[in-house]
Amino acid sequence: MNKRKRKKWSARQSSKRGTVPGTPVFIGESRSEAVRIGSISYDRGDLVEKGALSLDDVHRPYRSEGVTWINVDGIHDLKVMDALGKRFGLHPLTIEDLMNTSQRPKAEVFPDYLFLVMKMMNYNDETNSVDVEHVSLILGEGYVLSFQEKEGDVFEPVRERLRASRGRLRGNGSDYLAYALMDAVVDHYFLSVERIGDVIEDMDDRLLSDPRSDDLQRIHELKRDVMTLRKAVWPLREAVGKLQKSDASFFGNDLDAFLRDLYDHTIQVIDMVESSRELLTGMHDTYLSSVSNRMNEVMKVLTVIATIFIPLTFIAGVYGMNFKYMPELDWRFSYPVVWIVMIAVGAGMVAYFRRKKWL
Amino acid sequence: MNKRKRKKWSARQSSKRGTVPGTPVFIGESRSEAVRIGSISYDRGDLVEKGALSLDDVHRPYRSEGVTWINVDGIHDLKVMDALGKRFGLHPLTIEDLMNTSQRPKAEVFPDYLFLVMKMMNYNDETNSVDVEHVSLILGEGYVLSFQEKEGDVFEPVRERLRASRGRLRGNGSDYLAYALMDAVVDHYFLSVERIGDVIEDMDDRLLSDPRSDDLQRIHELKRDVMTLRKAVWPLREAVGKLQKSDASFFGNDLDAFLRDLYDHTIQVIDMVESSRELLTGMHDTYLSSVSNRMNEVMKVLTVIATIFIPLTFIAGVYGMNFKYMPELDWRFSYPVVWIVMIAVGAGMVAYFRRKKWL
Amino acid sequence: MNKRKRKKWSARQSSKRGTVPGTPVFIGESRSEAVRIGSISYDRGDLVEKGALSLDDVHRPYRSEGVTWINVDGIHDLKVMDALGKRFGLHPLTIEDLMNTSQRPKAEVFPDYLFLVMKMMNYNDETNSVDVEHVSLILGEGYVLSFQEKEGDVFEPVRERLRASRGRLRGNGSDYLAYALMDAVVDHYFLSVERIGDVIEDMDDRLLSDPRSDDLQRIHELKRDVMTLRKAVWPLREAVGKLQKSDASFFGNDLDAFLRDLYDHTIQVIDMVESSRELLTGMHDTYLSSVSNRMNEVMKVLTVIATIFIPLTFIAGVYGMNFKYMPELDWRFSYPVVWIVMIAVGAGMVAYFRRKKWL
Amino acid sequence: MNKRKRKKWSARQSSKRGTVPGTPVFIGESRSEAVRIGSISYDRGDLVEKGALSLDDVHRPYRSEGVTWINVDGIHDLKVMDALGKRFGLHPLTIEDLMNTSQRPKAEVFPDYLFLVMKMMNYNDETNSVDVEHVSLILGEGYVLSFQEKEGDVFEPVRERLRASRGRLRGNGSDYLAYALMDAVVDHYFLSVERIGDVIEDMDDRLLSDPRSDDLQRIHELKRDVMTLRKAVWPLREAVGKLQKSDASFFGNDLDAFLRDLYDHTIQVIDMVESSRELLTGMHDTYLSSVSNRMNEVMKVLTVIATIFIPLTFIAGVYGMNFKYMPELDWRFSYPVVWIVMIAVGAGMVAYFRRKKWL
Amino acid sequence: MNKRKRKKWSARQSSKRGTVPGTPVFIGESRSEAVRIGSISYDRGDLVEKGALSLDDVHRPYRSEGVTWINVDGIHDLKVMDALGKRFGLHPLTIEDLMNTSQRPKAEVFPDYLFLVMKMMNYNDETNSVDVEHVSLILGEGYVLSFQEKEGDVFEPVRERLRASRGRLRGNGSDYLAYALMDAVVDHYFLSVERIGDVIEDMDDRLLSDPRSDDLQRIHELKRDVMTLRKAVWPLREAVGKLQKSDASFFGNDLDAFLRDLYDHTIQVIDMVESSRELLTGMHDTYLSSVSNRMNEVMKVLTVIATIFIPLTFIAGVYGMNFKYMPELDWRFSYPVVWIVMIAVGAGMVAYFRRKKWL
Repeated sequence: MNKRKRKKWSARQSSKRGTVPGTPVFIGESRSEAVRIGSISYDRGDLVEKGALSLDDVHRPYRSEGVTWINVDGIHDLKVMDALGKRFGLHPLTIEDLMNTSQRPKAEVFPDYLFLVMKMMNYNDETNSVDVEHVSLILGEGYVLSFQEKEGDVFEPVRERLRASRGRLRGNGSDYLAYALMDAVVDHYFLSVERIGDVIEDMDDRLLSDPRSDDLQRIHELKRDVMTLRKAVWPLREAVGKLQKSDASFFGNDLDAFLRDLYDHTIQVIDMVESSRELLTGMHDTYLSSVSNRMNEVMKVLTVIATIFIPLTFIAGVYGMNFKYMPELDWRFSYPVVWIVMIAVGAGMVAYFRRKKWL
Repeated sequence: MNKRKRKKWSARQSSKRGTVPGTPVFIGESRSEAVRIGSISYDRGDLVEKGALSLDDVHRPYRSEGVTWINVDGIHDLKVMDALGKRFGLHPLTIEDLMNTSQRPKAEVFPDYLFLVMKMMNYNDETNSVDVEHVSLILGEGYVLSFQEKEGDVFEPVRERLRASRGRLRGNGSDYLAYALMDAVVDHYFLSVERIGDVIEDMDDRLLSDPRSDDLQRIHELKRDVMTLRKAVWPLREAVGKLQKSDASFFGNDLDAFLRDLYDHTIQVIDMVESSRELLTGMHDTYLSSVSNRMNEVMKVLTVIATIFIPLTFIAGVYGMNFKYMPELDWRFSYPVVWIVMIAVGAGMVAYFRRKKWL
Repeated sequence: MNKRKRKKWSARQSSKRGTVPGTPVFIGESRSEAVRIGSISYDRGDLVEKGALSLDDVHRPYRSEGVTWINVDGIHDLKVMDALGKRFGLHPLTIEDLMNTSQRPKAEVFPDYLFLVMKMMNYNDETNSVDVEHVSLILGEGYVLSFQEKEGDVFEPVRERLRASRGRLRGNGSDYLAYALMDAVVDHYFLSVERIGDVIEDMDDRLLSDPRSDDLQRIHELKRDVMTLRKAVWPLREAVGKLQKSDASFFGNDLDAFLRDLYDHTIQVIDMVESSRELLTGMHDTYLSSVSNRMNEVMKVLTVIATIFIPLTFIAGVYGMNFKYMPELDWRFSYPVVWIVMIAVGAGMVAYFRRKKWL
Repeated sequence: MNKRKRKKWSARQSSKRGTVPGTPVFIGESRSEAVRIGSISYDRGDLVEKGALSLDDVHRPYRSEGVTWINVDGIHDLKVMDALGKRFGLHPLTIEDLMNTSQRPKAEVFPDYLFLVMKMMNYNDETNSVDVEHVSLILGEGYVLSFQEKEGDVFEPVRERLRASRGRLRGNGSDYLAYALMDAVVDHYFLSVERIGDVIEDMDDRLLSDPRSDDLQRIHELKRDVMTLRKAVWPLREAVGKLQKSDASFFGNDLDAFLRDLYDHTIQVIDMVESSRELLTGMHDTYLSSVSNRMNEVMKVLTVIATIFIPLTFIAGVYGMNFKYMPELDWRFSYPVVWIVMIAVGAGMVAYFRRKKWL
Repeated sequence: MNKRKRKKWSARQSSKRGTVPGTPVFIGESRSEAVRIGSISYDRGDLVEKGALSLDDVHRPYRSEGVTWINVDGIHDLKVMDALGKRFGLHPLTIEDLMNTSQRPKAEVFPDYLFLVMKMMNYNDETNSVDVEHVSLILGEGYVLSFQEKEGDVFEPVRERLRASRGRLRGNGSDYLAYALMDAVVDHYFLSVERIGDVIEDMDDRLLSDPRSDDLQRIHELKRDVMTLRKAVWPLREAVGKLQKSDASFFGNDLDAFLRDLYDHTIQVIDMVESSRELLTGMHDTYLSSVSNRMNEVMKVLTVIATIFIPLTFIAGVYGMNFKYMPELDWRFSYPVVWIVMIAVGAGMVAYFRRKKWL
């Protein structure tokens, strides 16, 4: 499962080869679910929520209407995307990027709207791997479009807050809504990163005392997961940084502190990801060291047993020779003397190993 | 085969030593095919395609003629290149770079034209290596020159689109054509990178369970291939970035979003190349670990067998001694007792190893 | 214990998921102590110190009053923080960061005040690990707020100097007080860094001569501690650098040299941390080398003993054969001759090993 | 030999300690040859070449005279350098750098002239090492001075072109001559880099199949050579980059494309050097892996032989015991049965190893 | 000894914890020698040199007096430093830094003077380690103050040149003197770096052929020494770079070339230090490889001996069995046949090892 997910993000781009640039083609895990479109329109006073909209119900809101948030679950239906693109005046390249799950996070300013690509991360406890989902936002005057690969609950808290009329959401414009959605995605990262961090630390604590043969494989997989996370967060940091500096007035000045906070959070996620990465590198070393230590121990046991008994066996061999003229064979106390010699040699060896701290 | 290709790109530069700078000399795999020149002239209405042009048929188009695209397959013929250079007013250093397959990707702005060097990449499934081809573009007012080392089909989709009058191509100027050609090359990278990525992942999945003796060699070769890819893509990213920022008006403002998209794609290729590289480094470590693990296992078997039997052999040796006075030899139950002792010693050893988890 | 501390800084962020951005939630080790608020108001002439203030006694000072320093021990009580936030006009995100112990060091300029997040470091000799404490400063006109997770003595020297009317403190404004508090924290770092440095050097000196089996584990733990320190100091350096360059007039020009000095000190701490880190990496290598050396020695002993006695045992075995027709068995001096041969073989082996420098 | 050369560049600087800054002292391999000065004066029409000039014949040319190129072979004669310095108005620090073979490549703009330090590289096939030579250029109005440590042929092609009146050389000013000389030096690098690259690749191809005991030493030496190359090329790149950007008008605008080309070439050399370096690092790993593999193989042979025969020897030992009451000894078919048992044990072992793929 | 020195630079900073910032406290190796103050006043005509000045004789010179250079040997006496600070109008933080031997190199511009912290390096041949000394310069109008931890001779050549009225020194201002002193310190670095470089190369040459057991320890120590050097030179480079760019007019424009030269020299020192570092890293690898090679050789000897004799011993064991019915025992030529078989087996083994190139 791990592999399938990973491939999704990086391996289908070539299917577009030869098409006109700006031709939208869905690149991602193939899906058959119908696309679900829902919308919430609100201002400080009212809130209207609609689920399961048909394409015909979706249109670009007039400025006077407060804020309209249209959420699209499912980006694999070219017809839907094309229609939306036309109604909201999206650039063909934007539609292409919306549908391309291998597109890396970025922020792009168009004359009419701001386009933001992000990645959702879910640590999947069943497959022990990170699921990646392509999430995009479009922020225009008075509206926000959000696109997800499939239905999910990451935006649910924002919806809740809108319905409850809590917080600043209802009294602010579409820019604040866009910020709130981005914040929801970044907050979600903490969950994945902490989950993966826990897995890593549990393993790290066990590794020296009880290394298992599949640990190396597991470390390898975790490294890939962390790599996936990095590839989602680093460009996002860049994108958020760009939003902060952007001259275009999509974000009001009153949001400055919030964007800085968001930027801060992405850096914190990066910090955690990099720590995980360093830990994993350390764990690889630890694993190798513990294998090496174990080998050392094996060698010591072999050496101790062999070096004690090989000389003794030689002594026994000597007196197993069948020469006619071997005076010792006929002596009365040869046998006990030989035993004493053998015990002395053995004890000497043991003492030597004790001194060497091999025993 | 792998090696021959690699050398081509990096190893013939010295043959030019001592010549006047700006002296065009073909540097690359020697070829004997005739140079093939084809042209397509089009505007929104008409399209004229000519194949196998002779040198005399090629001339710099007047501005009024729409767009003319001249494609040259084969860059090893000095006479042809010189003639083209003169007719299109190319700088001697440009001609030198056109013919030098060891030239790295770059974008250079001349007063009259824009010069772009790229590398085509093909993963060759037969030799399991990456073939590199030197591709250059010259974008002037109303015309585009493209140069390839040999006939290839990477530009075919662009030709198709021109013929079919599809997309934006026909309605746009030479700058859009140049962009479309660059885009075709970069899109082609995905194919090579994904192909190599698949090879790497297949190997990675097998490596821990079933390492083969030539894996190290293979990892080594793959590393070189990835290195080749990196050397093609990193400078290209720089070049495309330069095009975006360039003040010279070779690219219209309406192409900004497209160039940004192209830049984005090169970064994505780089991301994938770097991931492959990290995976390969990890695989090298995995291979070494698995060799080390295997050694460990070998050592354990040796140790278990040796430490069990060496003491037993010693005991047998003792009673093989020929002393006259060895009371045990004459006892009635010595033999079974010795067997019991030996079995006990052996069983004790086995129990010890069990506890140590060596068995 | 080490682990618990480490987790604190990096692992609870996700508990905030789904809340409104700017919602203060305490993120950190849970505590039940009551929050303690103390204040010192002073000007060049007078100083009034109050301990255990109730929330009602705390209010934003008027500008004419000289400098007021309010220190809050305990940041886990939302009610207290909220009340303070309101009285001092703090941004909701500031309160959020004040209570979030996983927030990394930073400096943020708000219109009314300057907000600085730092980390206190204590090397805990009992648990042999670094304790991290979240410390924040708010510098406004005529007042400084300081927040600590629990009562501590790091600011005590500053208090002493205020009381004693020594130094520049009493004659300067709130900016100098804020600087003095930052300086106290950074000076405190030296203690932790030097303590950890001593532990590392002691271990390093012992490592080659007397490696212990838990050294690897210890190196691993020290690496984590150093990582924790790095994560506290690097962003602090950035924050102090920002203060230096900041246009906002929270720091008077007369403090320039002092801020530069503070910046210098953070760089010095970083230098020391990086040195520790390099030493630890070197120690890991040293440990592995010494394990490898030891293995080598073990192998040598085994080889010497085995290769000396195995041939001798063979010789003895030969004359232990029971063939009827073995002329040597009946010769008069066979036995001593065999001994001589065996001694010669053994001595030859020893000489060979001597030459190889294995003995 | 390798070592001597390397030391030259980095190890005699201290001999100047205590002297006045700007005191010219020759730092380099001591030489006794006489300094040879030659000159070529030319304009578009005429060319006058003089060899073996005496100091008195050398003087700074008047501007009207076209271009004068004075080449000095040998920089160890303080008197000569001083005299030249005076006649051409060189800064004392320039003379110091001219004579200091440990000076790294750089470009420095003085009011009257441009000073460029470069390094010549020769791969010496006899000593299998890279010889470094200190080469400096001084470009003034109407003249170029070039300094080499000893007579060499790297500038010969330029001379040839001047004599033959070929190319742009004769029609251009002293700036183009300086460029041509720099180009000659950089072109020469390709030779060394390719030569070293060939040596590395030959070795790399052989390494896995047939590692030799001195390979490690050789890799080590090659690493040093590559290090030497890097130290020559990296600062040169910087220097050429500086020339491109320099405001001072020593290079005419018509040379821009040429300087860019030169810059490009240095980057290409750097690329090749870095590739060599990466290859060498990979080869070190390969060597270690192949040593480790070999060890593994050795261990396997030992283990197979030992684990097959040790149990068999034990069985033989059992029936070599001399107990009076050993019923098996008297049985009729004991001996063949024991053989069968022993063969079965041995065959079982072999089968086990087969299954483990050790055989 | 090595350790004591190293600690000095990095380990006493914490003793200042809790003091007022800007409180001068001596941080360094404790010393009891009296502080020695000497001065040299000169202009183009006269030079007055005074040794062993008392504090009362030291005062800030009037501008008309030419240049006064006051050298202070010993920075541990707070009283002296305080008095000097007052007389020359030094900032409290400057005095703090003057006395703090753990202060890293830096250049700081104050309104009245320029403050420069450097480190002197001496390779101590007795302790085989690098001694670090804290050296500071203060450059004001018409005067230079220099501070050393103890009497040393690094400035002696400058004094000599002043006395001898040689060079530019006497005719130039205090800025040139400051430059000359800096140059003297940097020139001194070459000595240490070259000395350490020689030690490293000697060891490197010996390492593969004759590794010793304490080499690892030595490499470790050298790494630390090189680290110490790096920590002195890198920030110095930065400081000198700052001097070059500084707008403040402490250095006249006529010194530009000299400062550039100084900067160049620090870069050259850095180059050499980095080369040493790379060599040391390579040597560590070489050492490990040679240990591994040696192990390999040991294993081979063991394997050869064991695998030759173990089968032979088995054969001998078989015919040492005491079965009644063993037909071979009674055959006439059994014994010689067995010998022939054993020799054949042994020879076969040897041939096998020959083919494997283990012999």
